[in-house]
Amino acid sequence: MKAEIIAVGSELLTPHHTDTNSLFLTERLNEAGFEVHLKTIVGDSETDIAEVLGAAIDRSDVIMFSGGLGPTEDDLTRSAVAKVLGRKLLTDAGLLEMLRQRFINRRIPMPSINERQAQVIEQADVLQNPLGTAPGLWLHERGRYIALLPGPPPELRAMFESQVMPRLKQLGQGRLLAKRTFRVTGMTESEVDSIVAPIYKSYPQLQTTILAASGYIGINLHQWLSSGEEPSELDAAATRIQATLGDAIFTTSEQSLEEVVGRLLRDSGRTLAVAESCTAGLLAMRITRVPGSSDYFLGGVLCYSNEAKVDLCGVPNEILQKHGAVSAETAEALARGARAALHSSIGLGITGIAGPGGGSAEKPVGLVYIGVSDGDRVIHVRRIIPGNRDAIRERAAVFALSLLRRFLLQPHTLAG
Amino acid sequence: MKAEIIAVGSELLTPHHTDTNSLFLTERLNEAGFEVHLKTIVGDSETDIAEVLGAAIDRSDVIMFSGGLGPTEDDLTRSAVAKVLGRKLLTDAGLLEMLRQRFINRRIPMPSINERQAQVIEQADVLQNPLGTAPGLWLHERGRYIALLPGPPPELRAMFESQVMPRLKQLGQGRLLAKRTFRVTGMTESEVDSIVAPIYKSYPQLQTTILAASGYIGINLHQWLSSGEEPSELDAAATRIQATLGDAIFTTSEQSLEEVVGRLLRDSGRTLAVAESCTAGLLAMRITRVPGSSDYFLGGVLCYSNEAKVDLCGVPNEILQKHGAVSAETAEALARGARAALHSSIGLGITGIAGPGGGSAEKPVGLVYIGVSDGDRVIHVRRIIPGNRDAIRERAAVFALSLLRRFLLQPHTLAG
Repeated sequence: MKAEIIAVGSELLTPHHTDTNSLFLTERLNEAGFEVHLKTIVGDSETDIAEVLGAAIDRSDVIMFSGGLGPTEDDLTRSAVAKVLGRKLLTDAGLLEMLRQRFINRRIPMPSINERQAQVIEQADVLQNPLGTAPGLWLHERGRYIALLPGPPPELRAMFESQVMPRLKQLGQGRLLAKRTFRVTGMTESEVDSIVAPIYKSYPQLQTTILAASGYIGINLHQWLSSGEEPSELDAAATRIQATLGDAIFTTSEQSLEEVVGRLLRDSGRTLAVAESCTAGLLAMRITRVPGSSDYFLGGVLCYSNEAKVDLCGVPNEILQKHGAVSAETAEALARGARAALHSSIGLGITGIAGPGGGSAEKPVGLVYIGVSDGDRVIHVRRIIPGNRDAIRERAAVFALSLLRRFLLQPHTLAG
Repeated sequence: MKAEIIAVGSELLTPHHTDTNSLFLTERLNEAGFEVHLKTIVGDSETDIAEVLGAAIDRSDVIMFSGGLGPTEDDLTRSAVAKVLGRKLLTDAGLLEMLRQRFINRRIPMPSINERQAQVIEQADVLQNPLGTAPGLWLHERGRYIALLPGPPPELRAMFESQVMPRLKQLGQGRLLAKRTFRVTGMTESEVDSIVAPIYKSYPQLQTTILAASGYIGINLHQWLSSGEEPSELDAAATRIQATLGDAIFTTSEQSLEEVVGRLLRDSGRTLAVAESCTAGLLAMRITRVPGSSDYFLGGVLCYSNEAKVDLCGVPNEILQKHGAVSAETAEALARGARAALHSSIGLGITGIAGPGGGSAEKPVGLVYIGVSDGDRVIHVRRIIPGNRDAIRERAAVFALSLLRRFLLQPHTLAG
């Protein structure tokens, strides 16, 4: 069962915009049993839209359009599709009345161009749009099914979930793409692949992707199932991967590292404070992305200058003079200092050289030290992170979250 | 002169990956005088690749492929293109020797599958790949030009710049897409459009896009120019937009707001410190994204808890009790406190309710106060920001940067 997605809009053919609706549509189509084998992005050109649909209808069971349903002359999806199918565009009186009512409710006059949005292709089902003025359409032609969906992502999603997904599930006849996901820290993409490949390759029905995301390596296993079929290969492979990677896996439910760390802090009734130098807020920003993080995150100190390290975080001047601002000793002092300044159970400190300037032979750009202290003990890790300023800061924050996670999981077995 | 881009790779048809090479290719194709009118994403299927190329060759002057040039059985671009053109795949002895040498230099044996990468379509020019093993190809067929480029973005970019762009410029015969950009803060997309539309609509040769990016509204004006033609409409419209929007434009050279603020701080020899509550590091993180920001950014305090606001930032307990943690008085006290704690010229404070919890009828989720102080004066702004937790924090940081910019531009005319 093959699906194809066609995104319409000249703005999607500029260097500034990328089509993201298709990622959502792909995920849901897969869940309904359809494999997406082609995506096309086409401008506001009736000729191009018609040509792409003409090719699609010969090769795909289901075709999803997004965009081009607005009221202006640039919105050509309806007319192009009608031409290819050889059907008429008719004004739907009920739809026109609903559009008029929408404008009355908003207390603004309806521009006459909006009347175009009440045009419906012969024999199409109208898909209601609770969030906007552009109605969608659902069409059946020679065993193929075609949906016309609006471009704005919230409108497309709401219409798809309520009116397209149920139709697709019926067409998919219980077929679906089952999946298992794992997220891993502390390993590179190729390290993960070299460990996991012997496992997934021994299950011929699995499709596997290993992807390097910001802050983790993701492993996605997929298996197509017919109606009622058990995901036996998927379960067997997942069990073996779990056993092999163990603690390196921080989630099997697509949680972020900061969500996992937050849960560990909350469960153990502990609070956290940070002292950030090179990351300058990036770590705290990630921790507090999680709703409710104020339960365990108290705050922190951004000590970009040496004075701030001394004044606000109590780093002894001797340490800065003897070991430098980027050193294991400073990282540990920052962890202790954050804990003391905010009266938290745990303190986390980061110091490093994010570049592009400031590096030396002894202390290169990318050198980062992270310290963590719970009052009883203080430990640190040292990393040299490749890449540019953004990448170094991003990965330094991930290393800090990763160290904190291991500290919270097994505080008494970590090496100093 | 029409161009079309075809991205090959089954991973680009999952919910996890989006094609980004085409954004780079579009920008450069435009600069060489080609308009991109279609983009297709196709999996590792010889049939689908061939079908898409068959359609493309009938409608586009230039066709850019990315991906599918690797050494494995999944890499099918070469063979599919050869089939459509009715040409043979031949092993290029020089290329094979170069591939062998690459592996010798890396001191690893060359897997026999890599020999496939020395296969060249008859009558094609080979495009060298200094960053990887996959060579590219350049083909001419019935007045159309086809480039086969590798999928990894650094390899694609390097090969394109050195070997494809010069060929395209020659084909484009001096035609190019000239552009002007403006970035605006403090206005919504529709406010900007309503002001700017009467200007750009009076120049029929202009193409205009208004886009809402994270933290600003972008205005992009484009004009196609033939060889030697002056961008007269572009210049006239740009002058009028500049005069109309004035200070609301923070850059005409695609700088970020934090770069602009950083330049204003450096030029005036002033230093900055922040006190962040709801944004918890997001503001400082953005400010320090700019290389060299340690010249003017001293650090800050993340005072998520009330205790931290009092202890670290000197916010008087009476203010918190009388006006609450989210109030104009607290924002101003945070600005003063940041300045005092870090000994900076200017202090910037943010407090607000990022949600999803913590809102009330009087102080709803999205309410944000921002204060700024230079010792002489302290001012604040109040905003109610719609959206979810991420959006509220993101836009609060933008409002803070925007307020700081106005403060640095004209400190003596700002209302309190």
